[in-house]
Amino acid sequence: MKAHVWVMLKTTVLDPQGQTIQRALSSLGHASVKEVRQGKFFVLSLEGLNREQAKAEVERIAKDVLTNPVIEEFRLEILD
Amino acid sequence: MKAHVWVMLKTTVLDPQGQTIQRALSSLGHASVKEVRQGKFFVLSLEGLNREQAKAEVERIAKDVLTNPVIEEFRLEILD
Repeated sequence: MKAHVWVMLKTTVLDPQGQTIQRALSSLGHASVKEVRQGKFFVLSLEGLNREQAKAEVERIAKDVLTNPVIEEFRLEILD
Repeated sequence: MKAHVWVMLKTTVLDPQGQTIQRALSSLGHASVKEVRQGKFFVLSLEGLNREQAKAEVERIAKDVLTNPVIEEFRLEILD
């Protein structure tokens, strides 16, 4: 079973890395890109859990390990 | 219009960062996680393009700027 986890800066938090990419794109002629935000994406391979257990486990992992709750938020999906 | 871009190491390329996370999870008691791969996730906000143009533009950006084609591959989606 696989799980996907997205970790993004909260929308209220400035993203200087994304801003740098946006300016770089603009200077390269990609003027239609008005904003860029960069986050992290994790693919987890799980064994020995059913779907409910996997969801609970990945939620714990995302909350406790992958995300800094002060400035980041996460989203997850479980795939079969 | 928004676009999502995922940039991942090719599956044939070792992901030491993901391996480190997997080992950390294992030592924290999350033994069901057998593999972790980490990638980057970008949210682009676009203006002045229709869906077709946006797709072509984001594909160029992903290919030329966001991805190192030697070791990485990308996937994208366009949202309304």
